[in-house]
Amino acid sequence: GQAPEKTDFANYFCTYGYLYHQKDMLEDHKRTGAYYQAVMQNRRQFEGKVVLDVGTGSGILAIFAAKAGARKVYAVEATSMAAFAAKLIEANQLSDRIKVIQGTMESVQLPEKVDIIISEWMGYFLLRESMLDSVLFARDRFLKPGGAMYPSHARLYLAPIRTQATQQRLHDFQGAMQGWSAFVHEMDSYYGVDMHCLNDAFHQEQRGYYLSTSAWADVHPSQMQGPPTCFKSYDLHTLTMEELAAPLKASFRLDLMDSGSINSFAGFFDVQFRGSQQNPADFDVLLSTAPDPTGCTHWGQQTFPLHPTVECTRGDQVVGDITVVRRKDNHRLMEVHIRHTVEGASLVALQSPQRDSHYHIE
Amino acid sequence: GQAPEKTDFANYFCTYGYLYHQKDMLEDHKRTGAYYQAVMQNRRQFEGKVVLDVGTGSGILAIFAAKAGARKVYAVEATSMAAFAAKLIEANQLSDRIKVIQGTMESVQLPEKVDIIISEWMGYFLLRESMLDSVLFARDRFLKPGGAMYPSHARLYLAPIRTQATQQRLHDFQGAMQGWSAFVHEMDSYYGVDMHCLNDAFHQEQRGYYLSTSAWADVHPSQMQGPPTCFKSYDLHTLTMEELAAPLKASFRLDLMDSGSINSFAGFFDVQFRGSQQNPADFDVLLSTAPDPTGCTHWGQQTFPLHPTVECTRGDQVVGDITVVRRKDNHRLMEVHIRHTVEGASLVALQSPQRDSHYHIE
Ligand SMILES: Nc1ncnc2c1ncn2[C@@H]1O[C@H](CSCC[C@H](N)C(=O)O)[C@@H](O)[C@H]1O
Ligand SMILES: Nc1ncnc2c1ncn2[C@@H]1O[C@H](CSCC[C@H](N)C(=O)O)[C@@H](O)[C@H]1O
Repeated sequence: GQAPEKTDFANYFCTYGYLYHQKDMLEDHKRTGAYYQAVMQNRRQFEGKVVLDVGTGSGILAIFAAKAGARKVYAVEATSMAAFAAKLIEANQLSDRIKVIQGTMESVQLPEKVDIIISEWMGYFLLRESMLDSVLFARDRFLKPGGAMYPSHARLYLAPIRTQATQQRLHDFQGAMQGWSAFVHEMDSYYGVDMHCLNDAFHQEQRGYYLSTSAWADVHPSQMQGPPTCFKSYDLHTLTMEELAAPLKASFRLDLMDSGSINSFAGFFDVQFRGSQQNPADFDVLLSTAPDPTGCTHWGQQTFPLHPTVECTRGDQVVGDITVVRRKDNHRLMEVHIRHTVEGASLVALQSPQRDSHYHIE
Repeated sequence: GQAPEKTDFANYFCTYGYLYHQKDMLEDHKRTGAYYQAVMQNRRQFEGKVVLDVGTGSGILAIFAAKAGARKVYAVEATSMAAFAAKLIEANQLSDRIKVIQGTMESVQLPEKVDIIISEWMGYFLLRESMLDSVLFARDRFLKPGGAMYPSHARLYLAPIRTQATQQRLHDFQGAMQGWSAFVHEMDSYYGVDMHCLNDAFHQEQRGYYLSTSAWADVHPSQMQGPPTCFKSYDLHTLTMEELAAPLKASFRLDLMDSGSINSFAGFFDVQFRGSQQNPADFDVLLSTAPDPTGCTHWGQQTFPLHPTVECTRGDQVVGDITVVRRKDNHRLMEVHIRHTVEGASLVALQSPQRDSHYHIE
């Protein structure tokens, strides 16, 4: 369920109130530069238009839109960062065209409908934070018919990879269980309290923490054991709130280029700036968070460790389905369930069992 | 103000639901051992008595009380850890005498009044977490007249110390400010956005983070430049909720044993198990978190860095007052304000200004 607003402010919005955090995002130039290109190379789309920036943060996207010639920009921000955005806009002589409004998108009023909605709403593995909800809310309420969403499309990918992190996690898990044994022994000898009965519960808790949690990583392309596959794409002009809030279920098929083992899936996303059908962009811009030899964006990739390792032969395919569900106690966090098997003519594939893995994206 | 219960569960209670965290506390044997001694060396006080354990966690203190001969122990725990406590109590054959009740202390009912309340409620710098509120609530509602609190007394201390951490923090702060300069330059050259106007705001934010935040530390006694002084003590039998919730204001005087500089105050606490006036303990036990050459408890000490360093001469005294106030947006976190000057016959002392420092305990 949705958190009460006060909890949401304490847990979600709070970090966005710090310049430090806004700076982290701004200096991810692959990110900020992509938005800059998407606006500046499509100046013709922005000239004379009314724009809404959902979650303006430091005000940067509103500033880009105004620089590109927008007649009016509404820059909505939930946190106290709104005051700094206003200051920045003032210092850059754009106060006459940008109006900063502090409040959640769900609660504010705008005096007119808008031609373009721009927003940087993407979280880890695209969906974490569920901020896209607020963007769709804004679209349904304030976007003129035929208006354009920036970005307009989003896609989710999986790739089979090999990473040291999987073994490291297993090693840490085993260390934690050894620590527990020593602890149980101590509690008995120091206080005469027998804690054996909690062995299984501790094992399960630690297993969840070490083996069933996805992790941020900067994956190098050489770690990929086959090309990524897109398992889900969204058109932000037509995606409904209902579809977004429902569990995402999709199947995937991954080609393997080498014989050997894969011990993780890497998940990542891209977004495209293509404008709307009625107002297409003049130049399409792509912001990708795929593994990149020059280093990752601040989103990195999400890795989903596989225990045990999956053995494959060149030409085999990993075939499966993935489910992404919002957590019941916090709609901004996700649970991911991946079911897969190896298909192909190889002996390994023929003997490959169906495997089920569960993960948290915290 | 007090958080709504849902926010409090999301932010405060959540960590206590993990065995991992309970284990961390249990294996702090200076802590657990002190409670064990306090109960076992005062068996005569526990025999045949009714005991309430406020925040039983794993159930450990309830188990100690039952082992010491308590007739009945009520073990109250807000989180799902209650189920593991029940399991542990069952495995140690004490289910007939310990009743685990899941719920917040403020919301549960007990079928009878109790002779003893035992609880491990102390947070960093004693007061962080404000869990003592729940213990006083339990006392006022459920403790028989003349009943005893375990622990019965608590004291807060300050000591003047020297630590590398203060310079390190200053260094990190300067690094953050240099990073900001480079960032402002980049934003201008990449996107033509002038961010100078936020220099002061960023400086202030980072100053708060690096220089006005107290930090956990394991202080070695040799770092102390003079003996600690107790600036506040609490008798848990008579302390009122009103006094506890009000800002704590106290003055202190610290003797300096050496000439040289001090660049931090170390704050720590101890608690005593002395029983009540009507039911005094047979053996007093002390649980201290003072700097210790054999290493600290899991509470460590809280250090309050001093910028700039305070220069002193042997025989001078640091004289001042300290205020500890609950944060308005979260009553479990604290702000600390320390005002001090150096007094004495030395030239340094004669020229010493009055200094004001503010800190967060996060
Ligand atoms: N429902 C909502 N209403 C208003 N602001 C929101 C919101 N959900 C998230 N935000 C804000 O949206 C911002 C997302 S981060 C992106 C900031 C800025 N647009 C940039 O590109 O650099 C955060 O500052 C967050 O506080
Ligand atoms: N108001 C309240 N009601 C019930 N439990 C509370 C509470 N405030 C804190 N707690 C619980 O109190 C515990 C404090 S930690 C101490 C645990 C245990 N007594 C031990 O000594 O090892 C946590 O498990 C926390 O969840």
